[in-house]
Amino acid sequence: SLDMCRMHRVLEVDKKSLIARIQPGVYGPHMEEQLEAEGVTLGHFPDSFVHSTLGGWVATRSAGMQSDKYGKIEDMVISLRMVTPSGTIITRTVPKSSNGIDIKHLCIGSEGILGVITEVVVQVHHKPEKEDWYGWLFPDFKSGLDAIHECHRGDCMPTVTRLNDPKKTALSFAFKHPKTGIKDKIAKAFKWYIGNVKKIDFNQCCLMVVKYEGTPQAFNRIKNRVTAIYKKHRGVCLGAEPGRSFAKVKFDFPHLRDYVMDRSIMADVSETATTWDNLRTLHESGLADVEQAIKDTGVDAWVGCHLSHSYRTGASLYFTFGCLQREGREIEQYLYVKKAAEDAFMKNGGTLSHHHAVGTEHLPWVEEDLSPTGLKAVKALKAGLDPNDIMNPGKIIPSEKPLDDWGLSAEAIDEFQSRS
Amino acid sequence: SLDMCRMHRVLEVDKKSLIARIQPGVYGPHMEEQLEAEGVTLGHFPDSFVHSTLGGWVATRSAGMQSDKYGKIEDMVISLRMVTPSGTIITRTVPKSSNGIDIKHLCIGSEGILGVITEVVVQVHHKPEKEDWYGWLFPDFKSGLDAIHECHRGDCMPTVTRLNDPKKTALSFAFKHPKTGIKDKIAKAFKWYIGNVKKIDFNQCCLMVVKYEGTPQAFNRIKNRVTAIYKKHRGVCLGAEPGRSFAKVKFDFPHLRDYVMDRSIMADVSETATTWDNLRTLHESGLADVEQAIKDTGVDAWVGCHLSHSYRTGASLYFTFGCLQREGREIEQYLYVKKAAEDAFMKNGGTLSHHHAVGTEHLPWVEEDLSPTGLKAVKALKAGLDPNDIMNPGKIIPSEKPLDDWGLSAEAIDEFQSRS
Repeated sequence: SLDMCRMHRVLEVDKKSLIARIQPGVYGPHMEEQLEAEGVTLGHFPDSFVHSTLGGWVATRSAGMQSDKYGKIEDMVISLRMVTPSGTIITRTVPKSSNGIDIKHLCIGSEGILGVITEVVVQVHHKPEKEDWYGWLFPDFKSGLDAIHECHRGDCMPTVTRLNDPKKTALSFAFKHPKTGIKDKIAKAFKWYIGNVKKIDFNQCCLMVVKYEGTPQAFNRIKNRVTAIYKKHRGVCLGAEPGRSFAKVKFDFPHLRDYVMDRSIMADVSETATTWDNLRTLHESGLADVEQAIKDTGVDAWVGCHLSHSYRTGASLYFTFGCLQREGREIEQYLYVKKAAEDAFMKNGGTLSHHHAVGTEHLPWVEEDLSPTGLKAVKALKAGLDPNDIMNPGKIIPSEKPLDDWGLSAEAIDEFQSRS
Repeated sequence: SLDMCRMHRVLEVDKKSLIARIQPGVYGPHMEEQLEAEGVTLGHFPDSFVHSTLGGWVATRSAGMQSDKYGKIEDMVISLRMVTPSGTIITRTVPKSSNGIDIKHLCIGSEGILGVITEVVVQVHHKPEKEDWYGWLFPDFKSGLDAIHECHRGDCMPTVTRLNDPKKTALSFAFKHPKTGIKDKIAKAFKWYIGNVKKIDFNQCCLMVVKYEGTPQAFNRIKNRVTAIYKKHRGVCLGAEPGRSFAKVKFDFPHLRDYVMDRSIMADVSETATTWDNLRTLHESGLADVEQAIKDTGVDAWVGCHLSHSYRTGASLYFTFGCLQREGREIEQYLYVKKAAEDAFMKNGGTLSHHHAVGTEHLPWVEEDLSPTGLKAVKALKAGLDPNDIMNPGKIIPSEKPLDDWGLSAEAIDEFQSRS
């Protein structure tokens, strides 16, 4: 792999057009620091923010937690340069064009197989004057989804809207510090109020974390409109605390997997996206299939889900799963469960990933996701621009037997399935 | 060419997700009629609306007059099918994905050179409850641009914002029906007020036409915010009439060129886009270069410009030019002037077209616009998906000498230039 770290400068900020020309090797915090000195922000904050670079985000079609307001990275790129074995692709810095096939979109998401991104011009935004987080509790997943859906229909989406399903909600509350003294008494009284006055069932309830921002006027305008919609869907505001504590730990999540793995717990995530009409079906089938797969491996399952990127037409679903590892069969067990999640996405109108890219992990589903002819188009680009196959070989374009390459044999699958 | 007219049905409207699955051969009015029966609209109204199809819009990256609210067609497409000589590309109907290179964007804008689009799923919108048009007069082009820019910065853009420069403004007013009786007296008094109280110079002033829409509350909210910004930039509201009359004739514009051509007048348009910071430079150089080119051909020039699609980062510029035809040299004269416009776009940070596509007319500028390696990528796709070059040959990919193919010889260019 190529270390791009020394290309870490914000080269130019055009404050009139609100665009910035940036080198691709810059890490998230260093980039935002340089942009902040100019009073602007990219608004892109994936969980991997501190460990990942602008070039990496563009090459993988990354999404940050503020995507509801700022878009995915592919929505932010105005132009770019990519050095390929056949020359350098340079697109023009214009807001929109009708110049045939949009070359920019051949580079975005190419995960290094065509060339190396060496410069990106992105849309930036003035730093908001005011921002704050709030927590809400909804009686169930459906009412939370309905509330988000209505915000989209009313064109009043917060900057962040993150809805946990009941399992994920229980996990979130389990992570909270225990309270003591007077705070403990207030928390207990509030819990009594939610359960007995608001009639919320703690086994079904769902935590939503939202962030508003803007000028003080814009902040209040959006907050008031969203609050009215949430209340209509039986949401109960928990105040600023749950959101603020989420904001504090948000970049720690990627470390959790390795931490629990050292303690014999297999844990990972699989995420997808689908239309609003199909969202609950995919949520339920995803949970059921992953849970069944874990049980197939002979252990108890924990599976939860959250939604943290939504659109006028649909939303992402982000599944988290965990179980005890099967000693000696850790890899097989993991792949078997991961396969169940991706199979569920393919079978139920999802996509192989909403923002985690293909890499090698999702190779077995590329052909089904893009369609065989879609994959031919990718191969045509690869053959044309990198005829000697020197750029990041083995990514995006699967071999004939991707599941085998992946390390999951047909025998292992049969063996797990025969248990159930 | 292929007649797709019999594939003219809206196959499915998903009102929860607000998406519609539509056959590509449907003409604008017939499509909107079918969508309206379901209470929704695509919101895509190019000037060619009555003569063009959904498939054509997608294949050419078309823009409609409401693009400021609804986006260009490439922003509306959720998924599509395209039949190529190597098989059928089918993308998944999901709001967003991270599945490698976005295959959808290889099909959008491909202008028929890779295959035939046979189905498109697009985002649709509820029909707005209320909509209306307004006319505004700004003292000059800069103040109009500044007003639009500030609306973008405040996230309060009308559905349509169309700003004419001074020449185009004079043309618009020349098209008005003369008034009689009391209406004539009121018009004269209002003109006196604008000139003497508002101190607007009628040689510099610029007409802006805007459209608001939404629920009655949303309509008023946006109208009030925009009105405050326009007034700050010395705009004077002309009431609803100029906007409403624009709306009445908007789909007649494409007929004008042929009408005047029958009367020995050469007239055409060339349009581009650039960043806010570069907009006035490109406006001025575009006007100057086209005017000079017309004068080179030995006749007087009329050149005007309007802006009707704008973005957070920049806007389109749409130049209209006209002059007396040089008898016997009509084609050469036209190509010489057209070349001056496109050269000006390339030289001054524009793009060969914002929404008119490449076709054959813009072939001479494709390589410069996409960069030579960008063009290689297009050729790679063509070779991979259409190895026998049977799909719409001669489009998008230029020959070695595109200007010659185009019909403008080096001698003709020299001869025109030597006059000036």
